[in-house]
Formats: sequence, structure tokens, C-alpha cells
Amino acid sequence: MEQIKGGVTAAHGFEAAGTEANIKYQGRMDMALIYSSAPCNVAGTFTTNVVKAAPVLWDQQIVENSPYAQAVIVNAGIANACTGKQGMDYCAEEAKKAASFLNIPENAVLVGSTGVIGKQLPMDRICAGIEKLAAAKDGSIEAGTTASKAIMTTDTINKEIAVTIELDGKIVTIGGMSKGSGMIHPNMCTMLAYITTDAAISKKMLQEALSTSIVDTFNMISVDGDTSTNDTCLVLANGLAGNEEITAKGEAYDKFLEALNYVNTYLARTMAGDGEGATALFETVVYNADTKQNARTLAKSVICSSLTKAAIYGHDANWGRILCALGYSGVQFDPENVTLYFESKAGKLKIYENGLDAGYSEEEATKILSEPEVTVLVDMHMGSETATAWGCDLTYDYVKINADYRS
Amino acid sequence: MEQIKGGVTAAHGFEAAGTEANIKYQGRMDMALIYSSAPCNVAGTFTTNVVKAAPVLWDQQIVENSPYAQAVIVNAGIANACTGKQGMDYCAEEAKKAASFLNIPENAVLVGSTGVIGKQLPMDRICAGIEKLAAAKDGSIEAGTTASKAIMTTDTINKEIAVTIELDGKIVTIGGMSKGSGMIHPNMCTMLAYITTDAAISKKMLQEALSTSIVDTFNMISVDGDTSTNDTCLVLANGLAGNEEITAKGEAYDKFLEALNYVNTYLARTMAGDGEGATALFETVVYNADTKQNARTLAKSVICSSLTKAAIYGHDANWGRILCALGYSGVQFDPENVTLYFESKAGKLKIYENGLDAGYSEEEATKILSEPEVTVLVDMHMGSETATAWGCDLTYDYVKINADYRS
Repeated sequence: MEQIKGGVTAAHGFEAAGTEANIKYQGRMDMALIYSSAPCNVAGTFTTNVVKAAPVLWDQQIVENSPYAQAVIVNAGIANACTGKQGMDYCAEEAKKAASFLNIPENAVLVGSTGVIGKQLPMDRICAGIEKLAAAKDGSIEAGTTASKAIMTTDTINKEIAVTIELDGKIVTIGGMSKGSGMIHPNMCTMLAYITTDAAISKKMLQEALSTSIVDTFNMISVDGDTSTNDTCLVLANGLAGNEEITAKGEAYDKFLEALNYVNTYLARTMAGDGEGATALFETVVYNADTKQNARTLAKSVICSSLTKAAIYGHDANWGRILCALGYSGVQFDPENVTLYFESKAGKLKIYENGLDAGYSEEEATKILSEPEVTVLVDMHMGSETATAWGCDLTYDYVKINADYRS
Repeated sequence: MEQIKGGVTAAHGFEAAGTEANIKYQGRMDMALIYSSAPCNVAGTFTTNVVKAAPVLWDQQIVENSPYAQAVIVNAGIANACTGKQGMDYCAEEAKKAASFLNIPENAVLVGSTGVIGKQLPMDRICAGIEKLAAAKDGSIEAGTTASKAIMTTDTINKEIAVTIELDGKIVTIGGMSKGSGMIHPNMCTMLAYITTDAAISKKMLQEALSTSIVDTFNMISVDGDTSTNDTCLVLANGLAGNEEITAKGEAYDKFLEALNYVNTYLARTMAGDGEGATALFETVVYNADTKQNARTLAKSVICSSLTKAAIYGHDANWGRILCALGYSGVQFDPENVTLYFESKAGKLKIYENGLDAGYSEEEATKILSEPEVTVLVDMHMGSETATAWGCDLTYDYVKINADYRS
């Protein structure tokens, strides 16, 4: 596997564009298009929130019922959630408009929205945006970057990545982009993430790969514990790489899954580090746990703890909060048997062992915790299972952003 | 039932004291004593955190095995959690010291600690404090207030209450005090809460009443989702009111339970409103739910949502976040069937109905949300069950307090 430049346009046959539609933001792009010249198998995972945004409902039925997909239209600024029948009608209208400009079937168009809940989309501006996107699309690396910037809301950096693998002597590319900064606590899937690949893979195995991959990638991040109404992760595979179609588990499937995991891990981790108001990526690695699920639960409990997140912001080695978060996770263990370490580029330090403070230097701990990427290592001494979760610190700016968001 | 002045010393036979022991804080009281001249039946509920502080383990065995209890020693500043065998030995030493000064058995002494995790108690200062407390104790209302102040950490107000009921022509009093501001997300019980009563009630029925009461009182509050290692709620009943001992369910038990609920609700609600950094009490009432448990889950999900809490701080009627929090609670419902209202002293306003914004005035909503006590009313239109949860807003000061707590 090799990481290459680019994102959603890295794979053969994919084009993209971004444009200013003035939906909510002024003076910046807020609509994006991903398009494939060839029909794609599509797999998707969506929010488990009972309150599902209209685009989630639309995409779910496309993924389930359409023979193939060929385009995704995304807007930032308004989430098209809690918008009733009108919201659903607007999804259909978006698809119809995109289909006519792109000359593809309406049921090959996926849609995505992110932003404020409860407002209707301004359809005149959305439709004008779609027309501009269709005219502007191209297959360059830059076009993929443009699209990844156009779907940002409170994100401070765009998120994209691409990798290649070799299958049957053919180069297969997987690229992706995502957005997400607040209301992030994915369950089954996350915010908006779009992955494109020229791999030939059956719809069934594509969904299998995606559903497997999200468990240890997007589902292991949290910014604020709030599972969004709009979480959507789509993978489009157009088969143009020319490999023998993957139709069952085996070596080729494993290689594809590994590359997909790599892409999803990068996007998920970057989203966590770019959490609203965050000054640091806060990673927790639980190892030597008795079961994989317990490792996941423990790691996620630590990165979700408001008190721990605030301590990370203060560069304070307040390990009691970490032990406390492990303790209320629901997993049974003996606290005396756990060892804790802090680690970052500045070093690694044992903090807690045998039920007690390990006698570390506060000064050294503060130095380690002052880096932009901070890891807590938790050795459970119970087995051999590992899981990693990613979050961020809790800052004044998180409060500021979310006390003012709609104004 | 009548609310009267006072707290833990309101019931017959109870005395209290507070003192400056300089455990962590300087220039303020940080140790408290509750004492009963007569032996008490005692009931307790404790943190469900796997990581339990030494005083929790100590109190659990006293509640389970001792024939009666007669005193509680509490300190603020250091939690005596994650302190290993030494921490347990210190609990025993506290009990021994208190027993000798109060002339009661060692196994009649309960202990409680709150504060930073992972530090050992300074036993010389603790023991000196116990001696001063034993000398200073008295049965006045003021002594109860003093004790309630001495157990505060980041609390900004002391919490105490007392009520009377009539049983068999006798006046029975229930009084209580509690502390709690951060690391508050009780599960089975909460932070430190001490209830005293002169009711004659069997140990079995006292535990039954407490375990029933906490479900809809202390367990329905959250400040930050972090379930502490030290949560403890104790009820001491010395029987001095002279009522016929309550030994089974019936009219007298129901009256006692109602009064206990009143006391616990007051203490829980006041703790939530005094959450770390809070500017407002944030109450959520879910009604017409299909089951009681679903009503509780939905109400608690809303008051735990970081995004909703930040919006309350910003006086922003961002109802989409409330609907989102209901949606990810795990309870199944039809979002189109829910009605939302905001209510405070400034008025009541319908916000969301039939799946859409109810067309309310933003100006009026902001006025309602600018009060120090704000309620969200959620009509589920599914049944007849109700639950109330209490939280607070998420503010800059919460972050400040918890980024700096140990320093």
C-alpha cells in the first residue's frame, strides 16, 4: 500500500468540483460535487439517530434500491434535518437537477447536507449551485481538494487522503474526503465522509468492507458525545482499475479492506484533532484487554470524558480522571492491575501503577501534554486485545463556537 | 409534609460541626462531622464506578455489616481514591480516632472524602480535625449549616434542606446536606449526600426507601457525564421521633418515601444548578412517554448533550440539538410526533411541532432562555409516563475550573 497525493479524484474516472452557493456562509465555497464517469457500486453507513436528516433517508434508499450511483451533491450551512416532507422533496429536486445537468439517472444521485438543523434549503441557490458544479467538474487532484474544502462548516482544515494497492497486477486507488468538527460521536458511521475507488468490487463486498472498517475508525472518535442527525459515510466503486472483481472474502478483499481502513483511520483521526475549538488531538490506546469490545469501550470512555478533555487542555496530568472514566465505562477490571502512560513527541512517562501514582515528574508530564498530539496508553494486563480511540481537548472555544453557532 | 429550616441537625438527636483542617484549601472549613446521640439504622447507595474510593469501600462494609452507625466524618480537598492499601488503612484510622473522641464503637463510624484523586490524606491534620470536630459538635440549626459548608469543593453554595411529616401523631423530621459540582453523573447514587432522620424505620425499609428514591432524584442529574469514584448517599435514622417503627410497605412508608423524595429532589436539583461554571439550571421534563424508563432516558440524554448545554449558555433556542439528543438516546419514537416547549419564569413557548419549527419568535425564546432556571418540555404523545432530569449549561468557566483544578 502506498499513500499518494489527492483525495476523491485520485481514483480513475472520478471528477469533483466546489462552488460558492451562498447557502449560509458568505465569501466561501459551500457546495461540492463528486462524479464518476462510470456507474459505481455504492455502500453506505448512516447515523443511528432516530432523528434522521432528509438526505440520510434519501441516500439510504439509493444505496438499498438503485442499481448503481454516479454522483454526490453536498452542501454546507444547512443540514436539511427536521424539515418534514418539504425536506424530502428538496432531496428529490436536487437529484433531478443534478441528473439533468450530468445526464445520468435521478436514482444515481446521492445528496448530503451539513449545518444548522430545522431550516429549509434555499432551493433557488442550491439549483444554481448544482448547475455551476456540473460545469466546473474535472478529474484533477486540485478539484478533489476544492470539493473537500467546500463541505467544511466549523472545520479548520480540509480532510482528504488517497492510497494505492496492487490487485492482479493492476493499480487500485482509494481516495476519500470528510468533514466534521462538532456534533461528532459517530455510531455506525459519522458526519460526512465520501470515499471513491476504482476497484472492481461487488456491492455486497463493498458494504461488508465499509461496515467492518467503520467499527475501528469513524466509530472510535468523539468530539462531544453528540451523535448527529446527518452522519453519512459513502463508498463509490466504479471498477475502472481493471482488477478481477472482488466477490468474496480472500486475499484481494483483505488488501482492499486494509487500504480502506488506512483511509478511514486517517480521516477519522484528522476529524478528531480538528474538533470544534480543539488545541490537541487526544488519542487513547487500550491494550492487553480481555476482549476487543471491552478495549473499544474503555478507550472511548476516556476520550469522551469532559473532565479528562479539560485536563488535556490545561496540560494537567490529572490521571485520576482517566482512571475514573475507565471505571464508569461499564467494563469490569481491577484498578490495581492497570498501568497508565502519557506519550507524545516529547516523550513517554509512566503515570500510574499498582493502584498508585507511579511517582512521575509533573514537569515532564506537562511537557509531554503540551504537544498538539497526546496519547494515553492503558495497559489492562488482562489479555491481548487492543483498541484506539481519538478525541480532542475541551476548550473555551468549544463553548464559544456552540453558544453562538446559529447567530 | 412541611419544609422547615435547617439540614442534618433538624431531626432529634443529631449534632454536627465543621472545622478548618487545612487539607488542601486554606482559610476555609474542609472537614465536617455528623453525629447522632442514639444508634442509627443506616442505608447507603454508592458509585457504580469500578474504581471505588477507599471511603466508599469502608462505608459499604459498615452499611452491610455493622449493627448500627452513629457518626460520619467527611473531608474535602482530597478524595482518598486510587490510594491503595494505605488509603484503606487511613479510613480505619479515621474511624478509630473518631470512635475514641465520640465514645462510640469504631464500626459505627462512616467516612467520606471528596477532592483530587490519587493523593494520600495528611493524617496528622485529619486526626487533629477530628478532635476539633468532636469538641465543637452541637445540635443547633447553625451547626448543620456549618457542616454543609465544610464539605464544599468547587460548589458555590451549600446545600441543605429539612422537612417534617406526621406519623402516628408524632412529628418525624428528615434533613439532608450534599455537595457536588463537577464529576457528576450519578449512577446508583451521587457525590456526597447525607440524610438524617429521627424516624423509626427498619434497616431493610430504610434501604428500600433510599434505593427507590435515588432513581428519580440523584440519578437524574448530570453536570458533565463523569460518574465519580466517590459517590455516596447515606441515610441515618435514629428512631427518636417515637413513631411506630416502619417495618413494611404501607401508609407510613409511603409518607416517609414521599418526604425523602422531596429532600433528595431538592438536593439533586440544587447540585445540578450549582454545576461547575454553570450560569443556569437546565431542567428537562419528558411527558406522555410510553414507559417510565424511556422517559428517564430521553430526559437525561437532553441534559447531558454538550451542544445543547452550550446553546443554553448562549441563550440560543437551538432546538435541533434537543431533538438530536432525544434521537440518539436509544429510545425509539417518531420525531414528527414530538412537541417541544421552552419554559422559564419569563414565559412558555412552543418551539417544535409536527416535525417542523413551530414558528416561534426568536426574541421571545431568548428572553425565556435568559433566566437562571430554564426548562425544556418534551411531549412524546406516546403514553402517560413522565420523568424530569436536571443539568446545567456548559460555560467557559467549566473549562477553566477543570483545566486548572489541581494547580
